[in-house]
Amino acid sequence: MESESDLREQLATCARIFTMQGMLGLHGHVSVYQPETKRVLITPGAGSDKANLRDADMVAADLDGKPFDGKGRPPLEWPIHMKLHAARADAIAVAHLHPPYGTLFAIAKREYKPVTLHSGIFAKGVSIYTEPHLITTPERGEKLQKVIGDRRAAFMRGHGITVVARDLKELLHSTLVLENDALKTLQAATLGEVGTFSAEETSALEKSINIEMVAPRTWIYFSTLEARWDRQPASGKSELFP
Amino acid sequence: MESESDLREQLATCARIFTMQGMLGLHGHVSVYQPETKRVLITPGAGSDKANLRDADMVAADLDGKPFDGKGRPPLEWPIHMKLHAARADAIAVAHLHPPYGTLFAIAKREYKPVTLHSGIFAKGVSIYTEPHLITTPERGEKLQKVIGDRRAAFMRGHGITVVARDLKELLHSTLVLENDALKTLQAATLGEVGTFSAEETSALEKSINIEMVAPRTWIYFSTLEARWDRQPASGKSELFP
Amino acid sequence: MESESDLREQLATCARIFTMQGMLGLHGHVSVYQPETKRVLITPGAGSDKANLRDADMVAADLDGKPFDGKGRPPLEWPIHMKLHAARADAIAVAHLHPPYGTLFAIAKREYKPVTLHSGIFAKGVSIYTEPHLITTPERGEKLQKVIGDRRAAFMRGHGITVVARDLKELLHSTLVLENDALKTLQAATLGEVGTFSAEETSALEKSINIEMVAPRTWIYFSTLEARWDRQPASGKSELFP
Amino acid sequence: MESESDLREQLATCARIFTMQGMLGLHGHVSVYQPETKRVLITPGAGSDKANLRDADMVAADLDGKPFDGKGRPPLEWPIHMKLHAARADAIAVAHLHPPYGTLFAIAKREYKPVTLHSGIFAKGVSIYTEPHLITTPERGEKLQKVIGDRRAAFMRGHGITVVARDLKELLHSTLVLENDALKTLQAATLGEVGTFSAEETSALEKSINIEMVAPRTWIYFSTLEARWDRQPASGKSELFP
Repeated sequence: MESESDLREQLATCARIFTMQGMLGLHGHVSVYQPETKRVLITPGAGSDKANLRDADMVAADLDGKPFDGKGRPPLEWPIHMKLHAARADAIAVAHLHPPYGTLFAIAKREYKPVTLHSGIFAKGVSIYTEPHLITTPERGEKLQKVIGDRRAAFMRGHGITVVARDLKELLHSTLVLENDALKTLQAATLGEVGTFSAEETSALEKSINIEMVAPRTWIYFSTLEARWDRQPASGKSELFP
Repeated sequence: MESESDLREQLATCARIFTMQGMLGLHGHVSVYQPETKRVLITPGAGSDKANLRDADMVAADLDGKPFDGKGRPPLEWPIHMKLHAARADAIAVAHLHPPYGTLFAIAKREYKPVTLHSGIFAKGVSIYTEPHLITTPERGEKLQKVIGDRRAAFMRGHGITVVARDLKELLHSTLVLENDALKTLQAATLGEVGTFSAEETSALEKSINIEMVAPRTWIYFSTLEARWDRQPASGKSELFP
Repeated sequence: MESESDLREQLATCARIFTMQGMLGLHGHVSVYQPETKRVLITPGAGSDKANLRDADMVAADLDGKPFDGKGRPPLEWPIHMKLHAARADAIAVAHLHPPYGTLFAIAKREYKPVTLHSGIFAKGVSIYTEPHLITTPERGEKLQKVIGDRRAAFMRGHGITVVARDLKELLHSTLVLENDALKTLQAATLGEVGTFSAEETSALEKSINIEMVAPRTWIYFSTLEARWDRQPASGKSELFP
Repeated sequence: MESESDLREQLATCARIFTMQGMLGLHGHVSVYQPETKRVLITPGAGSDKANLRDADMVAADLDGKPFDGKGRPPLEWPIHMKLHAARADAIAVAHLHPPYGTLFAIAKREYKPVTLHSGIFAKGVSIYTEPHLITTPERGEKLQKVIGDRRAAFMRGHGITVVARDLKELLHSTLVLENDALKTLQAATLGEVGTFSAEETSALEKSINIEMVAPRTWIYFSTLEARWDRQPASGKSELFP
């Protein structure tokens, strides 16, 4: 079991990387769950300076969104996180973001299909949550969780995305893969028909990807960039998978 | 009643944030009105360095565009501001901008429709001013004011936008929401049909938004970024609602 | 008559602003002509560091491209500049650039039409030079000059643009106006039909624009930004007319 | 014969320039071959900080991917490089990248056609490798090499690009030309039909280009920028051929 202080530090790093990439700033949040203690650590809500989050800024709350020790307050849409952490043994890390490109699949009527070798991890597809509201109640959180089922992510109509992973490194990697695919689809579409993979190819891709090996590399690469980021507004948005 | 020195400071901050976002630089201007004193405070005209505006740079003028004490000069298109401040009790803050994305709806023949949860505030729609000229006379200012009616904003053909709000925080928030929607529509359109909301959904969204709560959060977030902005050309343009 | 030292300084500033904007870096050049002395001042060729050009770096040459005093060498495509300076009394300043957006009208088969109030100055249209080669000989320079005629600019197929003006401030302003229109057309086109102006409207716009008044404002605005530019690669590209 | 220490320095510079341009960061690699010694120098694999690569970081390996002296490890997809170096006398420098725009031609179903004067060097076209997998075995490397044949480059489906050149300066130049053409095609396509060149024109262009003259200028220009790059994340991506 990882110590809470390690998890806090990893969570803060993950949030700063997403912020650097222009994917979590005003309204996004990320959480990590410790099943042994049933404690959720989550980034604070709108208004806080996400580029400078540190371990002590993480809010610890239970699965009903109540902060431990009455310190801090989880963000308004905490049920997104808590319902996923509670329902799935493999939902240790959850991100709710409104990223520049992924969010477009929550606006345009186009089904998401993997377009790069990386996105074989989304072979099961990405769910769509169609109700146009914030997830501010446990009931809505449960609905979203059911829509996601055993998939890795959902697009939320007119709103943003939610991504689920087994740890924070996998969460970072898979969220960036999805954003990269969204951007590439958008741009490739202006060139002509977008090439996708057959069912066999997607399945073969999924099997060929060793996410335990690649996710830590993605983590190291982006945390190196984040460590030297000057935190100038908009200065840090790197290409996703160059 | 807020003091004029507080309003000057808020107005300068608002202008610097818009400048940081690449939305007010060469030709834009922002104003705030004090009904009790019938004084308008407005940012100076073309040529001045909008990234470095401070409270003392704000021009104080009456509703006919005459500067008090003969100090400074309101920008050429002052009638946009004065006619709105004079005609609507809820037009305390007004921005006239030529933002990168909003302006495209003043060029392309496409009706603006809300595409994100945020833009429920534009449920009444956005007006279009079709005459291709600058608003340099009181008569043109009145025409624009009538075209806007009780709406929050207008697109001005081949030109830019005008946004009206009850205070500077609401002005910042609603202008960014409109710019965000314009950008997202533009990008989502390359993916396929852009999903919009039904009349019922838009109306429900409008009711669900507590702008008195969200606008100050937007203000805090962007003013934190602006406070550390290095004012390098083009360095500060952040994602709008990540 | 402006002194040559003033012209050198203005020309270097103009080149640095274009470089800051990502429009003149590797292969672009700008020139200014002194009819009284028949001397052309022109920026040096490919390879030099355009972001740091100073007055002493400007090459002085005659209308046949021969450097005075044998110092420096005009860029390979000097005939573009010399033939225009020689043929038109109003061609005092000339830019040959490969800007990110203007160049697209030299690639796509789409006629340029003014789309903003600013671009009334292009009421006569922009010429197209269709031969796919560099302008490396006096003959090609003359052909280009004839294609341009009395217009302000030409798109050069698969290549770039050439802009002509009565002084360097007008050159900066009109080149940025063209680039802004190219960008806005490109982006608006993804929203739907691009609105243009009727012949009467364009003509009225042209008459309404006092370029002697607006060009110096554009100059002041961008030279203020350039003066504080840190010259980081790609750091300085500002919005064109926000 | 160039000394290995010179080659190491050039290779590191080339990799840093590609990184600055957002084209080689997480997963790209570049190599150079010394036929006299049958030694390949190659940049290290995923995870390393490509913006700060120096000569000592280059891995020396033989044509079977075995590192000399057991120092370092070539990246996973080393067969791309080794099979090209072994098979073609003119394949001295090889880049495997996932650049933002070139990769789109590996996703969209659109044949690449030269659209700028620069891209006459791609008169023979660019190959497409259609199998959706990484090139992790010598067999796959050979297949890719055969698909490329005597061309300068290949798009690799859902993946990225490979470019071949006679030295590192030519490699930098031709990779940037391809990326520039990809970007320009993408953007011009939103304006309308993209203009291409006839077979005669392309052939004439190819003959007119003196790559031995232009490649070193591209190299000088971008290495000057790279030398003053502050290595902030995403800060250095310059326009390609302004």
